[in-house]
Amino acid sequence: QLEQMLEELQPYDLAELYQELPIKHRPKFITLLDVEMLTDLIQELDQKLQLEILHFLGIERSTPVLDLMENDDLADLLNELTAEEMEQFLHSMKKEESETVKHLMQYEPETAGGIMTNRFVWIRHHYTVREAVDKLKAFAEFAENIYYLYVLDDQKKLVGVVSYRDLLLADMENRIEDIMFSRVIHVHVDMDQEDVARTIERYDFIAVPVVDDEQKLVGIVTVDDVIDVIVNEATEDFQKLSATGSGRNSIDLQTEPSKAAGRRLPWLILLLFLGLLSGSVIAQFEDTLEKVVALTFFMPMIAGMTGNTGTQSLAIVVRGLASGQFDKSSFMKLVTRDLTVGLILGGVCGGLVAVIAYIWQGNLMFSLVVGLSLLLTLIIGTLAGTVIPILLHKLKIDPAIASGPLITTLNDIFSLTVYFGLATLLIASLT
Amino acid sequence: QLEQMLEELQPYDLAELYQELPIKHRPKFITLLDVEMLTDLIQELDQKLQLEILHFLGIERSTPVLDLMENDDLADLLNELTAEEMEQFLHSMKKEESETVKHLMQYEPETAGGIMTNRFVWIRHHYTVREAVDKLKAFAEFAENIYYLYVLDDQKKLVGVVSYRDLLLADMENRIEDIMFSRVIHVHVDMDQEDVARTIERYDFIAVPVVDDEQKLVGIVTVDDVIDVIVNEATEDFQKLSATGSGRNSIDLQTEPSKAAGRRLPWLILLLFLGLLSGSVIAQFEDTLEKVVALTFFMPMIAGMTGNTGTQSLAIVVRGLASGQFDKSSFMKLVTRDLTVGLILGGVCGGLVAVIAYIWQGNLMFSLVVGLSLLLTLIIGTLAGTVIPILLHKLKIDPAIASGPLITTLNDIFSLTVYFGLATLLIASLT
Ligand SMILES: [Mg+2]
Ligand SMILES: [Mg+2]
Ligand SMILES: [Mg+2]
Ligand SMILES: [Mg+2]
Ligand SMILES: [Mg+2]
Ligand SMILES: [Mg+2]
Ligand SMILES: [Mg+2]
Ligand SMILES: [Mg+2]
Ligand SMILES: [Mg+2]
Ligand SMILES: [Mg+2]
Ligand SMILES: [Mg+2]
Ligand SMILES: [Mg+2]
Ligand SMILES: [Mg+2]
Repeated sequence: QLEQMLEELQPYDLAELYQELPIKHRPKFITLLDVEMLTDLIQELDQKLQLEILHFLGIERSTPVLDLMENDDLADLLNELTAEEMEQFLHSMKKEESETVKHLMQYEPETAGGIMTNRFVWIRHHYTVREAVDKLKAFAEFAENIYYLYVLDDQKKLVGVVSYRDLLLADMENRIEDIMFSRVIHVHVDMDQEDVARTIERYDFIAVPVVDDEQKLVGIVTVDDVIDVIVNEATEDFQKLSATGSGRNSIDLQTEPSKAAGRRLPWLILLLFLGLLSGSVIAQFEDTLEKVVALTFFMPMIAGMTGNTGTQSLAIVVRGLASGQFDKSSFMKLVTRDLTVGLILGGVCGGLVAVIAYIWQGNLMFSLVVGLSLLLTLIIGTLAGTVIPILLHKLKIDPAIASGPLITTLNDIFSLTVYFGLATLLIASLT
Repeated sequence: QLEQMLEELQPYDLAELYQELPIKHRPKFITLLDVEMLTDLIQELDQKLQLEILHFLGIERSTPVLDLMENDDLADLLNELTAEEMEQFLHSMKKEESETVKHLMQYEPETAGGIMTNRFVWIRHHYTVREAVDKLKAFAEFAENIYYLYVLDDQKKLVGVVSYRDLLLADMENRIEDIMFSRVIHVHVDMDQEDVARTIERYDFIAVPVVDDEQKLVGIVTVDDVIDVIVNEATEDFQKLSATGSGRNSIDLQTEPSKAAGRRLPWLILLLFLGLLSGSVIAQFEDTLEKVVALTFFMPMIAGMTGNTGTQSLAIVVRGLASGQFDKSSFMKLVTRDLTVGLILGGVCGGLVAVIAYIWQGNLMFSLVVGLSLLLTLIIGTLAGTVIPILLHKLKIDPAIASGPLITTLNDIFSLTVYFGLATLLIASLT
């Protein structure tokens, strides 16, 4: 009964159940599962728990599970093991499977090669529809994606694709080359996973074929893995924007307090020193400040506004880079646009604050200093939020360093220098 | 030749081509396309361009295109028309199609009902595999998704699902009810689109069936539309975090300068007044400030750090809400965690800055004020970034108002009050 109930669970639900079990009951639970169910389970877990299960099973009972695992998931798992353990597992596996997986492990993880599977069905261009359907039947159980059949020529080059729908609608005696679609959209094995995801997203595919330099078909990337790429990349960009660690060092709602604090601290300490740098900028202007204490009143507003406008620009650019929009816009066009945006924002906000400052302090020159400073710093802030991440992107430096808090803090330094600099220049009129 | 080339283009590429044409050539280009191609094209465009094409075609030539469009896309398009135009189009369409689409238009746009299509294939539980395959063949051309067949009982209730793979592997004379999977994962027609997306993401489905209150099958949501949901929701959260407008008022790399500035201004003006509020907090402490000008030096650091830690917490919570992690954590657990995190961050950074302040200014009490302030404000900042968005989420208020810049600016006010309040309390020792 229990076993039948388990049998009917979706892999995700099986994994949820496993994770809710106390650790001491897990080894026993595992004995209730057959090889297929173990494979389903292990593919849904994160690496820590995958290793736990391999440990419970031992090499001998693990082997059939590894043989049955999807090669992309298996490659990721093996990459986590020590060289020695990896050798042991690969050695005990079926030769054919271990060869494939070794091959897959050579690709960079965040490329088409790193996320593709080799569980697809291919046919020859000279097959009939009947032969294709027969081959499909023979492989249906093992292939991850059976909705497209890929057509290869004699050199194993990808020359066409036939969908299940095409097979259904065709006559059994038709030749594949007569019904196949030959302008196949494909990706190169080295393509970045984000570009692969964008391909599937644009064309609404369920899978996309992956080819090597010689146009030979080496794998397919399926839509379920593309969804994971999209979700992970969005999370990563979020973490960048907020300087909360990324990848293995990321923080989520489940992270323990000490770990969460540990991952946030390096950034905060860096920002702390930058904040002290802002302070030392102010210290340079101590004389001005002692004469006009009211300058302090507008400091948080000016520094804050510069930071806010920088964060806005940064978010627009980061999202634009992620969705591939930047390919279509040129750098100079964006800089020009954001210069205009900064001018408008600065003009409106600067004018507004000059009026308020005049009403509050009753000194025309003083209100001019405040208004003009805000105008200048909003332009700087807007441009900094746009230019810095794009430059990093162009220089192929990880734009993670252009986080929101960093740009905010740098903008503090800019804005305070401008503000107190202007005030000092015009000091005679202020006192 | 040209027509054949166009025929072989993917819908996305056809739409790209169309958008690159100068407007004056578009009406002529459209005459080259047959009804299928027009349908492909119109489904890929955004609403402005969809309306442009309807305008070029006129009602009569539009009608067959509307009849052929996927119902979910059509419902969205019709929603953009004036009541009068909508009536005209609905009237000219096939009765059957217009009835369905009217029905679809009643659902909330961001729910399962709003994104589902009714182009699916259903079969009866008493069919044989052969009957199922025959029905599939008959509908293959019209159904959006033919990889699952949904099994209905006599009351049209959803009782099972059969995949194409199951049909391939089964015997032609098998009964559907014997080979179907009956624990069908389905979603309710009112379910939020993000939860629908999460269902497909978890189970790696290509489509998920949608049922009404009586378990009757009313549509399916396909994975390609789920990808669009995931991308749009991530963009929306990004925009929230950075206060750069959302939905129709969002800003991307293509937005014109005046529009971009116009959409950012309302937020910036609000933040400007909040910034002035920080200033008026400082003004309350003018006496303290005049006595100890060095207090100003640490102001940007304290305000900045409180803002940074708030942004970090906010980003973690927003992403956690988006990925459904919050369902598993309780509110109090998170508050406790972030209290601990705030204590650690505040303790380390506060201690560090106290030492630096002592070295810089040589006054023990002064460095105590700075260090203690940072400890307190980092705790407040961390908690504010966690508690505010979660409370808004719990109260079902759009957490858009808890943007990064807003939390940063509120934290400015908190932190300056704490800092100058502490300094004033201990003023005797400072002078
Ligand atoms: Mg991999
Ligand atoms: Mg990447
Ligand atoms: Mg799409
Ligand atoms: Mg689409
Ligand atoms: Mg896969
Ligand atoms: Mg997979
Ligand atoms: Mg990325
Ligand atoms: Mg809709
Ligand atoms: Mg939503
Ligand atoms: Mg998944
Ligand atoms: Mg999966
Ligand atoms: Mg659709
Ligand atoms: Mg959302």
